[in-house]
Amino acid sequence: MAGELRGETIRIVSETGGHLGSSLGVIELTIAIHAVFEAPRDTIIWDVSHQCYPHKILTGRRARMLSLRKKNGLSGFTRRAESDYDPFGAAHSSTSISAGLGFATARDLTHEQGHVVCVIGDGAMSAGMAFEAMNNAGRSGRPMIVILNDNDMSISASTGALQQHLAAVREGSGANSGNLFENFGFDYHGPVDGHDLDTLLPLLARLRDARNGPILLHAVTRKGAGYAPAETSGDKYHGVNPFDVYTGVQAKGQPKAPSYTKVFADALIQEAGHDDRIVAITAAMAAGTGIDRFEASFPKRTFDVGIAEQHAVTFAAGLAAAGMKPFCAIYSTFLQRAYDQIVHDVALQHLPVRFAIDRAGLVGADGPTHAGSFDILCLANLPGFTVMAASDEAELVHMVATAAAHDHGPIAFRYPRGEGTGVTLPTRGEILPIGRGRIIEQGSQVALLSFGTRLADCLKARRLLALEGISATVADARFAKPLDTALLADLVDNHTMLITIEEGATGGFGALVLHHLANRGMLDGRCALRTMTLPDTFIAQASPDDMYEEAKLTARHIAALARSGLGIARPNADLRRSTIAGQAELPARLHRAEDR
Amino acid sequence: MAGELRGETIRIVSETGGHLGSSLGVIELTIAIHAVFEAPRDTIIWDVSHQCYPHKILTGRRARMLSLRKKNGLSGFTRRAESDYDPFGAAHSSTSISAGLGFATARDLTHEQGHVVCVIGDGAMSAGMAFEAMNNAGRSGRPMIVILNDNDMSISASTGALQQHLAAVREGSGANSGNLFENFGFDYHGPVDGHDLDTLLPLLARLRDARNGPILLHAVTRKGAGYAPAETSGDKYHGVNPFDVYTGVQAKGQPKAPSYTKVFADALIQEAGHDDRIVAITAAMAAGTGIDRFEASFPKRTFDVGIAEQHAVTFAAGLAAAGMKPFCAIYSTFLQRAYDQIVHDVALQHLPVRFAIDRAGLVGADGPTHAGSFDILCLANLPGFTVMAASDEAELVHMVATAAAHDHGPIAFRYPRGEGTGVTLPTRGEILPIGRGRIIEQGSQVALLSFGTRLADCLKARRLLALEGISATVADARFAKPLDTALLADLVDNHTMLITIEEGATGGFGALVLHHLANRGMLDGRCALRTMTLPDTFIAQASPDDMYEEAKLTARHIAALARSGLGIARPNADLRRSTIAGQAELPARLHRAEDR
Repeated sequence: MAGELRGETIRIVSETGGHLGSSLGVIELTIAIHAVFEAPRDTIIWDVSHQCYPHKILTGRRARMLSLRKKNGLSGFTRRAESDYDPFGAAHSSTSISAGLGFATARDLTHEQGHVVCVIGDGAMSAGMAFEAMNNAGRSGRPMIVILNDNDMSISASTGALQQHLAAVREGSGANSGNLFENFGFDYHGPVDGHDLDTLLPLLARLRDARNGPILLHAVTRKGAGYAPAETSGDKYHGVNPFDVYTGVQAKGQPKAPSYTKVFADALIQEAGHDDRIVAITAAMAAGTGIDRFEASFPKRTFDVGIAEQHAVTFAAGLAAAGMKPFCAIYSTFLQRAYDQIVHDVALQHLPVRFAIDRAGLVGADGPTHAGSFDILCLANLPGFTVMAASDEAELVHMVATAAAHDHGPIAFRYPRGEGTGVTLPTRGEILPIGRGRIIEQGSQVALLSFGTRLADCLKARRLLALEGISATVADARFAKPLDTALLADLVDNHTMLITIEEGATGGFGALVLHHLANRGMLDGRCALRTMTLPDTFIAQASPDDMYEEAKLTARHIAALARSGLGIARPNADLRRSTIAGQAELPARLHRAEDR
Repeated sequence: MAGELRGETIRIVSETGGHLGSSLGVIELTIAIHAVFEAPRDTIIWDVSHQCYPHKILTGRRARMLSLRKKNGLSGFTRRAESDYDPFGAAHSSTSISAGLGFATARDLTHEQGHVVCVIGDGAMSAGMAFEAMNNAGRSGRPMIVILNDNDMSISASTGALQQHLAAVREGSGANSGNLFENFGFDYHGPVDGHDLDTLLPLLARLRDARNGPILLHAVTRKGAGYAPAETSGDKYHGVNPFDVYTGVQAKGQPKAPSYTKVFADALIQEAGHDDRIVAITAAMAAGTGIDRFEASFPKRTFDVGIAEQHAVTFAAGLAAAGMKPFCAIYSTFLQRAYDQIVHDVALQHLPVRFAIDRAGLVGADGPTHAGSFDILCLANLPGFTVMAASDEAELVHMVATAAAHDHGPIAFRYPRGEGTGVTLPTRGEILPIGRGRIIEQGSQVALLSFGTRLADCLKARRLLALEGISATVADARFAKPLDTALLADLVDNHTMLITIEEGATGGFGALVLHHLANRGMLDGRCALRTMTLPDTFIAQASPDDMYEEAKLTARHIAALARSGLGIARPNADLRRSTIAGQAELPARLHRAEDR
């Protein structure tokens, strides 16, 4: 059965892409858990849950697996709305023990009987909340089983003293008494071979029936187990594109432009070559943030702290207080983990920590758990913060240089997932004037003020509007904080409508523009104001294009809003399309965007 | 010297009030550290830093100690701007090891020599970020000294398995090998008597000179040591009002009304009596949040998770997923610690976790580190969240009932520090209609729309305006999300100016009102809009009244803004004051507010 499940998992992911290595590592664990426990009566919680594909196959979702990570398809993570077998959704790491203790507590308070099983990887154990949870679960005495899925790496190789401790335990040098989990009040069992069903099945049955407090089962597994291309790969096929099952060779789209991540890393390497106080910090996302490239050039100035964003930020604050220039490169969604540290240790002390915020905005197949929606509002409302967004990859290079030079308090710059627009990159970034935007195209009726990469769609919208005889100005705000108040005054004074556009929730850039204009009496009806933000919903996984469509943040939506604001009815769609087709100067990609 | 320093600390705090117990516990540690290390060349970081009073006395601030926690005075915490001897500010717990590792790393990268010493209490060790930091510090191998100030309690008695482990270590049953800190790669020394200078001085000198990696010194101390009234008190005089040195009796103001905290606790107890699925969670703030009262009635339904807000929230999410009705009672400022868990585990899963947000808004002597400024913007921009603010303590009772009944997604209600307004409390809370505000006083020209307890100042402002012939409507929004769009339409249609007032940063309630009105074309100049929020600065400690003055959120400021919006010049101040004094219907407290 393990062979069949492994083969099926490989076959599926070879077509869909996704998180393969982690799922292959828990094939036998998944079978053993479902053999011994009775889900959904028993509660099984997968930490992070990118390893849940075999679980989904075994719990009624096999036929739908090819829809994985696609629009209207199965989530790449556990999801409560998807199945009764997913009692708790995940995607960010290290939440399972806390949630599991909640289930165990509810069970005890209501005098029910179900078991609670949490499966957590060793990489996830580096995050503080796992310790907070163990501290409470250990003391509670409530029966629950935490299975430590120890494969000696999370996404990249795990780091930290804990990892060394686990290695010592695996090697038998610290397995007897006083290991970490026993210190926290868990009854420790292991280490056992997490691929050996002859061991797992009777042991899990025995632990299930013990019911005398929290248990930690230490299972040693191999990420990518049973599939040679994964086992021999450096990242164990953590996340893969569709691939050829026989060779393991992944399909690669031809990128038209370098990724924002690579552009950021190269720019930071360049700046660091000029300033030896620049250091880089990543929280277990060295490859994802490009910090692996930085590390190749500056190994001693690179710090991968593991999944530990809180520490990352206060560590950076300490470095800044001691005169260094730390760049914290963290995905927008994971930066949420460190919000208090940003407020309390960085902003309140006005320390010049630089935040490089990757994956800002919608991210595609990883869905709403990974969307970077809240960083603008979280940071731009903090006193003394400077908040930038790059409208293309050349701008990103400038913003790295600007952040490097900015020693007056914290500064952040956000940029999206994926490849750039293909613009020519500057040989070195220029230091941007703080709080100054720029007009890209001058018009007269409608002003489109973009914060970030929706600028390209604003330019497309401008062309659409021009076809209808509407003249639009397009501006790149560059800064959400401080606002370019002179630019705002200019736009408001000289247009009948101003539209702000950002790839973030309400409360961010557009809100600050509104606050400013309202409180200066500039919303007096002469220039109407509209804000385009992410909608007030969590947008489900889909292609990035589909997600922008659902978010109503495409050129078509921008143009429609501008048109409506001028009281101009939307022209007949067929007529418009033929009109566009007749315009020789429109680039091909604009037609594609319109035909979508 | 220890006797003198202890006496001086007691004398000072008997006059100023403040955090006494923790400071008395580290008198000898403070002397030993400053004797052995050379601050500010060496870096000394006090975790939380409410125990820093003896440190301040010894580092040049003795003469200013009576200004402690007062306007323009010394901070009750370490503060970089205050002294070179405060290399890193604190107030929230568990940041010192991360910051210290930052300093140690910077030292090594720049080839400097200074020592780094972090002093962290046992209570602070329950927060995850301390483990994240230990995991990194232990692996780094960098010389630094972490002094664990183990007094077996933080603010209230510490909880959790870690505490049991420390007790075992203290008693010698686990002190030899494999203790927690050694598992994390620290060279462990102790336990030692933290009040014994004959031990501390030579030991610290030896550890200072070791320089071969991270060291943990386990010092056992007594909170409140050397002052009998503190030692025998339940909370060891954690935070005190001014008191009589000889008797230890604290001055107590006569409260005019019950505190919001007590009203919340009583209302929750009442609701829990009707619904056994209601449970309460606090993160080491049982007394501060009133959950100690709840625990007296429902001990099995009360969970003090220690300083572990991340766990608290995801634990609550697990409880909610299992059908319970969890109330998470957390101060606004500490809720920042759990932002990702709120987004990812609660909001994304639309789980009905109830957030009781105490200390929302300005808090007085604890200053900017404890201000609750960002909870509105953090929560009200999340899809599916319901966000309320109580305008008085009767409203708080209704909101507890409303939250108890609300099973459709997450809901939060905020309320301020301190005593209520003295209104009559309902015998039981009513379930408020979700997303509906209420008009308190009808007027015709200016509409004052308050979210939270600034409502009282809006009513005062209305009276001030009435004296000048300006008619103001006063409304209580009750909800920042969902907005009462019908009320907004009514106010905008029937007034020439609408002012929103909230005790929170930009990006929150006022921003959502602006977004809504702008995108429905309602900011067309017929009704001007203004937003009153906390200003874009961190407001320094002062009396609450002084802080509201600085924030420009008093009745006088509200009236002035309303007046200016109508193009009416501010009347002569003397004239106005005499006019007010002549008005018999004005309550005495209004005169006081005006005379301030």
